[in-house]
Amino acid sequence: MRGKQVELESLWEEVREVSLGNSVDRLHSSPTPLQFLRDFVSQNKPCLISNAISHWPALSLWPTPSYLSTSLSSSLVSLHLTPNGQADALAPHPLHPSLCFVSAHVQPTAFPRALDLIRQPPNHLVAYLQQQNDCFRTEYGELESDCDDHIPWASEALGCLPEAVNLWIGNHLSETSFHKDHYENLYAVVSGEKHFLLLPPTDVHRMYIWDYPAARYSYSEESGEFLLELEEPERRVPWCSVDPYPATGSAEQERSKFPLYFNGPKPFEVTVKAGEILYLPSMWFHHVRQSPGDGGCTIAVNYWYDMQFDIKYAYFNFLQSLPYQSTDDQTIPESECEDLGYHPCHNHLSRNLRYLKDQ
Amino acid sequence: MRGKQVELESLWEEVREVSLGNSVDRLHSSPTPLQFLRDFVSQNKPCLISNAISHWPALSLWPTPSYLSTSLSSSLVSLHLTPNGQADALAPHPLHPSLCFVSAHVQPTAFPRALDLIRQPPNHLVAYLQQQNDCFRTEYGELESDCDDHIPWASEALGCLPEAVNLWIGNHLSETSFHKDHYENLYAVVSGEKHFLLLPPTDVHRMYIWDYPAARYSYSEESGEFLLELEEPERRVPWCSVDPYPATGSAEQERSKFPLYFNGPKPFEVTVKAGEILYLPSMWFHHVRQSPGDGGCTIAVNYWYDMQFDIKYAYFNFLQSLPYQSTDDQTIPESECEDLGYHPCHNHLSRNLRYLKDQ
Repeated sequence: MRGKQVELESLWEEVREVSLGNSVDRLHSSPTPLQFLRDFVSQNKPCLISNAISHWPALSLWPTPSYLSTSLSSSLVSLHLTPNGQADALAPHPLHPSLCFVSAHVQPTAFPRALDLIRQPPNHLVAYLQQQNDCFRTEYGELESDCDDHIPWASEALGCLPEAVNLWIGNHLSETSFHKDHYENLYAVVSGEKHFLLLPPTDVHRMYIWDYPAARYSYSEESGEFLLELEEPERRVPWCSVDPYPATGSAEQERSKFPLYFNGPKPFEVTVKAGEILYLPSMWFHHVRQSPGDGGCTIAVNYWYDMQFDIKYAYFNFLQSLPYQSTDDQTIPESECEDLGYHPCHNHLSRNLRYLKDQ
Repeated sequence: MRGKQVELESLWEEVREVSLGNSVDRLHSSPTPLQFLRDFVSQNKPCLISNAISHWPALSLWPTPSYLSTSLSSSLVSLHLTPNGQADALAPHPLHPSLCFVSAHVQPTAFPRALDLIRQPPNHLVAYLQQQNDCFRTEYGELESDCDDHIPWASEALGCLPEAVNLWIGNHLSETSFHKDHYENLYAVVSGEKHFLLLPPTDVHRMYIWDYPAARYSYSEESGEFLLELEEPERRVPWCSVDPYPATGSAEQERSKFPLYFNGPKPFEVTVKAGEILYLPSMWFHHVRQSPGDGGCTIAVNYWYDMQFDIKYAYFNFLQSLPYQSTDDQTIPESECEDLGYHPCHNHLSRNLRYLKDQ
């Protein structure tokens, strides 16, 4: 066991030593397609690019809320509602002993009303426009001419057009928990800032990916309350267990539960400002928080391009298939977790089940 | 142990299923730099390219031995001599219980004489022009204008010029044992054919890479005999133990010694004909045999480009670091091999030590 630990730790270190360095590379203008492919995509290595979207009308138009509300005055959009800004994240459930993988309540909402809820959040209700189904080209078609429908140098490098283009409008309360996507991701921030934590796919064991039962918030506008409902029939979702920013009271406990994350190499920290693009390589784990811009919200557009399922993907699957537990890892094994529930806050579950509406 | 075997076998299969397929891709003309980088280099995937060097004068000039001998009439070249065509290969040694890693005797020779020895091989003396030190641009400078000094689409894709360009002139007796190089390799055949066996880096455990003591042939022109001398001080070289074409008498034994190779997925077989280029990706294991062309020898030029030491390299090193032995693997562990010698032919060693000159 100790042998494999040493080998894994060497892998985490070596990928940083030979390729990634200590921080994400920064480019001050758009790369050529060849440069992008050779220096970043082929190497599965992120980069932050300035001055690549300076020509987008969105950069000057979207920070003005009235512009958006006027353009989308008659649009019904998919608004994601949670009591705490944590959707597609782990949360406790009173009827289940372990944590659940929780999805937001999705409410079709008139865009101007949705934007108001994001910009002036009521208590106990966090709204996030973040439908990841190519929504920019469907729900937000009216904004199409405000930015490019693809990133030209990326499309040429990758040899295809984006599979999906998504719009994200949120506030500082919304947070995206650690996960990975099977896409090459070009993430452009238009207003405000996005704060990413990034870990390469080599670090998969540091994420403690376990299966959790899927649950979904159900929000009643009448009562202003959220119910958390387990999906039926039961569906289990593999998800990263690590919260990189645990609440002060539980920090010590979280650190001892997930030592490979907290004691290993620091994640790459990148803040993407308005006007910048992050290249987030396929299979990289990422956690995202955000700060609002002048208009009171954070706005971003991301382009998902199909990834190549090549030797890197095969290596990743092999690595992930290796069972591993640190010798100083005090975590209860996954199988036991499922039966017993490892979350220490059972006494808080009922308190968390229903969240009161802002009064 | 059985668990890890299953995982490794899944890796060998998956890289073929998702990326490599059952045979090496063939292109009927030069790829664009982007296509080459995206579809092959980035994916660490070989391809065979036709019609990429049709404009080389070498294709029509070099198959005529008198052209080469005239052009290089005053050149002294590094001729590699062995008794059996096996240099940089494993061979038994009488004073050492295990096999050794054997290098050729390198004899500075007038080119016309060297070419004669290759085209009309005497008994028990195999000559091969194959100095891998950028020899094409040094020892063979007179031939420079007969082919390109780099492969334009590869140089543009990889963002650099070749680190080394090597010329290879040999006959059907010379064979290159399984090994890998830390370079991207563009291998152009000018006359005759090269027969490659290829295995991806994922298959490293199937190569049984063990340490062998280094030895070198010393050839006496006077006596016509080879001596095999261990290097002093001792130097140990990690080398692939598998001979994919064992002699008829030892085939069964070799198959049972190296089951992961012989019972696993077949290596990719590629014959590169005159006028074709093989892209041999960095870190791929390759074994090479050759058939002569009209002029009585096989001639090739290869371009070594620096590889990227990226996440693929880190994954490979991790994979290689995992100790592994098949449950049905009857091989004596390496440590014991070194002490005891596993080669079954000890009684033949003295017979093999000295090779008689052609008489």
